[in-house]
Amino acid sequence: MTKTTLAIGQIGAGRIGRLHAEHLQYRVPRADLRVLADVNEEAAQDCAQRLGIPETTDDYKTVLNRDDIEAVVVCSPTSTHAQIITEAAAAGKQIFCEKPIDMRLDRVDNALAAVEEAGVKLQMGFNRRFDANFARARAAVQDGEIGKPHLLHIISRDPAPPPIEYVKVSGGIFMDMTIHDFDMARFLMGCEVEEVYTAAGVMVDPAIGKAGDLDTALITLKFANGAIGMIDNSREAVYGYDQRVEILGGRGAVQTDNNYPNAAVISGADRVSRDLPLNFFLERYADSFVAEMNQFVEAVLDDAPVPVTGVDARAALLMALAARKSYDENRPVRLSEMDGGG
Amino acid sequence: MTKTTLAIGQIGAGRIGRLHAEHLQYRVPRADLRVLADVNEEAAQDCAQRLGIPETTDDYKTVLNRDDIEAVVVCSPTSTHAQIITEAAAAGKQIFCEKPIDMRLDRVDNALAAVEEAGVKLQMGFNRRFDANFARARAAVQDGEIGKPHLLHIISRDPAPPPIEYVKVSGGIFMDMTIHDFDMARFLMGCEVEEVYTAAGVMVDPAIGKAGDLDTALITLKFANGAIGMIDNSREAVYGYDQRVEILGGRGAVQTDNNYPNAAVISGADRVSRDLPLNFFLERYADSFVAEMNQFVEAVLDDAPVPVTGVDARAALLMALAARKSYDENRPVRLSEMDGGG
Amino acid sequence: MTKTTLAIGQIGAGRIGRLHAEHLQYRVPRADLRVLADVNEEAAQDCAQRLGIPETTDDYKTVLNRDDIEAVVVCSPTSTHAQIITEAAAAGKQIFCEKPIDMRLDRVDNALAAVEEAGVKLQMGFNRRFDANFARARAAVQDGEIGKPHLLHIISRDPAPPPIEYVKVSGGIFMDMTIHDFDMARFLMGCEVEEVYTAAGVMVDPAIGKAGDLDTALITLKFANGAIGMIDNSREAVYGYDQRVEILGGRGAVQTDNNYPNAAVISGADRVSRDLPLNFFLERYADSFVAEMNQFVEAVLDDAPVPVTGVDARAALLMALAARKSYDENRPVRLSEMDGGG
Amino acid sequence: MTKTTLAIGQIGAGRIGRLHAEHLQYRVPRADLRVLADVNEEAAQDCAQRLGIPETTDDYKTVLNRDDIEAVVVCSPTSTHAQIITEAAAAGKQIFCEKPIDMRLDRVDNALAAVEEAGVKLQMGFNRRFDANFARARAAVQDGEIGKPHLLHIISRDPAPPPIEYVKVSGGIFMDMTIHDFDMARFLMGCEVEEVYTAAGVMVDPAIGKAGDLDTALITLKFANGAIGMIDNSREAVYGYDQRVEILGGRGAVQTDNNYPNAAVISGADRVSRDLPLNFFLERYADSFVAEMNQFVEAVLDDAPVPVTGVDARAALLMALAARKSYDENRPVRLSEMDGGG
Repeated sequence: MTKTTLAIGQIGAGRIGRLHAEHLQYRVPRADLRVLADVNEEAAQDCAQRLGIPETTDDYKTVLNRDDIEAVVVCSPTSTHAQIITEAAAAGKQIFCEKPIDMRLDRVDNALAAVEEAGVKLQMGFNRRFDANFARARAAVQDGEIGKPHLLHIISRDPAPPPIEYVKVSGGIFMDMTIHDFDMARFLMGCEVEEVYTAAGVMVDPAIGKAGDLDTALITLKFANGAIGMIDNSREAVYGYDQRVEILGGRGAVQTDNNYPNAAVISGADRVSRDLPLNFFLERYADSFVAEMNQFVEAVLDDAPVPVTGVDARAALLMALAARKSYDENRPVRLSEMDGGG
Repeated sequence: MTKTTLAIGQIGAGRIGRLHAEHLQYRVPRADLRVLADVNEEAAQDCAQRLGIPETTDDYKTVLNRDDIEAVVVCSPTSTHAQIITEAAAAGKQIFCEKPIDMRLDRVDNALAAVEEAGVKLQMGFNRRFDANFARARAAVQDGEIGKPHLLHIISRDPAPPPIEYVKVSGGIFMDMTIHDFDMARFLMGCEVEEVYTAAGVMVDPAIGKAGDLDTALITLKFANGAIGMIDNSREAVYGYDQRVEILGGRGAVQTDNNYPNAAVISGADRVSRDLPLNFFLERYADSFVAEMNQFVEAVLDDAPVPVTGVDARAALLMALAARKSYDENRPVRLSEMDGGG
Repeated sequence: MTKTTLAIGQIGAGRIGRLHAEHLQYRVPRADLRVLADVNEEAAQDCAQRLGIPETTDDYKTVLNRDDIEAVVVCSPTSTHAQIITEAAAAGKQIFCEKPIDMRLDRVDNALAAVEEAGVKLQMGFNRRFDANFARARAAVQDGEIGKPHLLHIISRDPAPPPIEYVKVSGGIFMDMTIHDFDMARFLMGCEVEEVYTAAGVMVDPAIGKAGDLDTALITLKFANGAIGMIDNSREAVYGYDQRVEILGGRGAVQTDNNYPNAAVISGADRVSRDLPLNFFLERYADSFVAEMNQFVEAVLDDAPVPVTGVDARAALLMALAARKSYDENRPVRLSEMDGGG
Repeated sequence: MTKTTLAIGQIGAGRIGRLHAEHLQYRVPRADLRVLADVNEEAAQDCAQRLGIPETTDDYKTVLNRDDIEAVVVCSPTSTHAQIITEAAAAGKQIFCEKPIDMRLDRVDNALAAVEEAGVKLQMGFNRRFDANFARARAAVQDGEIGKPHLLHIISRDPAPPPIEYVKVSGGIFMDMTIHDFDMARFLMGCEVEEVYTAAGVMVDPAIGKAGDLDTALITLKFANGAIGMIDNSREAVYGYDQRVEILGGRGAVQTDNNYPNAAVISGADRVSRDLPLNFFLERYADSFVAEMNQFVEAVLDDAPVPVTGVDARAALLMALAARKSYDENRPVRLSEMDGGG
């Protein structure tokens, strides 16, 4: 008999945690969210009360120790992910974890080994794969609609840079921002990246440069199948969140546009215009956050593979590390260099 | 002190009823849906169980008799609307009612008199006013962005005709389908219509003609402020649900496009194409159904005017009656003709 | 043996005349423009010198009397068209004439009788039929791509009203402006119009009303095949020349957009915008003016039917007359009423 | 007194030569094309007869020796450009030359030295600078509309690869195809490129690879002002000629679309589509070929600077040489390496 609902404990009640909790309560029919943990228990209580979540705790271990909890949704700070994944796996919990696992490859590998050993599922929060535009682009490749892919473009620009204090602890633009695009590149092409070359600079805010980071980048990707691609990143597009992809294949091309709050066009005496695109990720990817969580719950209940794995997260991390090295040394860097052998 | 939630009983658990119930439970934070009534109580129970609604009944009077229920959401069959509105008003309930109130003007007037006498609020379900595209077009008029409006176009085409059995009891295309566009015309222009002229025919399906109805129409509208407009209706657009408006004013124009499931464009060897627009009203107006209910609940709790009134519903009804008369007599018909004096 | 060039005399060297002369000299390979006539011979000489036309005259009869001239291009004032057509036909010349033939039906009929009797060709200057957008829309109907047509929209708005002195002698908006749209309606649908209904007003400039004319109109059309359509006219669209059509058929729809000076989109901090559409007819229909003249010359040299006939011009005239009558009497008017029998 | 016309001799009557000759005769009012030279004099005569050019010759030196000829338009094979430029300069002729000057840097430098010494003007045929879309993008940068430019994209894809025999003598994709994009990059940004990195491959046709060439490339550009950019090239886009640019600046972005033969959209039962973009450069850049020649003639007659110089051609050549070296050595290559100094 098919199980109808999945008993879940969520760890983390910050911004993204509140979003996941609301979805688990209201938009994921087969989810049964039973407990919400946060070191700041007041935050957990506020959220739980608003959403009707029965219990809270300030210690995630409480969640892991409950026998009735089958799965955990991890949205605590990045620095805790690897540890919690490892413990959750040991406790036999199915795991959904916000990306990244960690910024250090050895910690990622340890966490993935724990998951492997425990035989539990681990789904990573690369929610953009579930966006309707990118899913359509992926389908155009996968179904052969545009033939064998030759060239990939990913445009990924934030509306404005994060606070400089955040920049300092973010792991850098490649780890913090491009990581999504690295995953998108692998997802869209259905193929591994073997080499990257980074051209980048500080054009938006000198303070970002002083913090040792970059704010503008073009990253060339070489895929295992011979295709090539590029990622365009900027920390600031004054017109809003710019998230587009384009793939040229032997039989055609697919190109996605941004999403807009409305489809109204105003023709005035000096120009024809429309409102700005949806400003940031909570608006732009609203549906994809819901979709990823539904698919996680379905995958666990139906014992199917999760759509985004820990291996995916590891691959994106390698690309982020290589992209920075490429910039530092101004040369193409093979991913194998970053991965022990290199 | 501001009340935080509104105790609601819903009457009707059919297709649109299930939609409203889900929204009241999950998407309208200040709603407290306590009971769901349907003559088919099994339908009510199924829905209640799935959504976690505490109680059901097969008799809507039970809902009206409960002192703890402050508001009712009426989504029972059209033929019952006037009666239920009248009784709900007498019971002092705040009322949200799916359109139309009734197809007969005298019954509408009686229901509105009851609402007036009871001093309760009545919001009608013209959900399209809450659609982001049309709201943006309305704003372009209201804010003076396009100047004084001169010309209005409303394109409103269904993907496919309803079953012929439905057509026979629908009240006809003007009452069933154009009614939304009549309301949209008044909403967008912020002005009453005084005269209509209908050119129409049976082009989609002869069976619709045999049933005494029409399936294709162009309706010219003359507004009290001198502006003119037209509504384009078809029961069948093979490419999907086509819902667009355009307004030309003295300082510019606003034009809305359809909504699409994604923003991907495919360039192939023989054409550049995209997927079809969202197919029908549940998809196209998904957000507007949520928005109208939130606004109803807010209006009641905050004692503010409801955004769509019974008077609005009556005006649209008059237009539907006049549109048919115009077609039957092939002449422009003034709305005043339909309204006692005529 | 196929004749290689056509010996042409042109009558009229005003704005549109200068355009045709330039095309005949530079853009119509098989045209041999030998003489340019204008009552203002200085104007003719200026134009001839600039373009390298060998001869000029101040008397169009000189052109008609020359045996070496095979065809005439008539771009003199409208009031002279019927007379010149009649004389040119009597002289055995092939005729291209700017629209309209005349504003009075009897004069049109006399001119057409003269053409018929002489057995010469008469092509009228409804250049929009040769526009790439409208030709594509026509093809979508003619080739069955969108199935049987049900609904037609023609949007036709000028950027600004003409000088009031011109308005007074223009014959009115329907004769001066809508005449093109009446022709377009018949062209696109491949079918005659049987009845029109006009809703109109003065919204742009009261002076136009004082001159007895209208500046804004919606004209409903009923076609012989049962289809219906509408024409939207305004003397002022502040964003420029607005020329679009849309046809809904049983198997699909075709919709054309305006033409723009460039395809650049600017995304700024407050909106996404593009430059205004091409401002007026000389820009918008630049290519169609060239195309119509090439087709005239080809039709004469190859003895093929001309693509726009005097009968087409007469039909558009009838529609203009009926549209005004419909407005004056606020009722649908059948074209047969205007045409003797009515 | 301003001279009114420029006496021109054209050298070369091949495909592009016939186009220039037609423009000089019909579309460039101040041009006076007196003689057309081609080693294949029959080709010159055919063209001259069709266009009404008074004289032809099979020896370009005849043109250079004529005192009445003030300017030459050089559209002979690439291998002859440097020699003809040198001789024409020595003869004191003003020069318009199709790109490139030569594929070898030393020959280019010799030709430019001759031009410099003679003090004549040399305009190179980078016609795309005169395209309305790219001119608009340039204006958006130059006028500060989008702020300081940060990121540049140039998409430049041919509809199909040239014949393999042509590929073998073309100088390779960077010299033959990308050369236009290298010029466009400098033009749009108003800034020199200092370094390039090429990722490329053979994805379209293995025969191109066998010929030692590439058919697909992504070239990263680093500009002197710190901005970065990329060029996307493919020898085959099955949907037609794909020519777009995009620039992100500190205050906004500009993005151009392709040009289409019409603006009609067809909505059918399975997709919404439009016709393919204009297929190749003669259609896509029809107007820019006319514009560049008018500007050349104006610049000579008015003694103004030409809009595209020999220095521009040299800079694009350096980029092409560096792009290939970068590919061969899989490393970023500074342009200074190619230019003597290393």
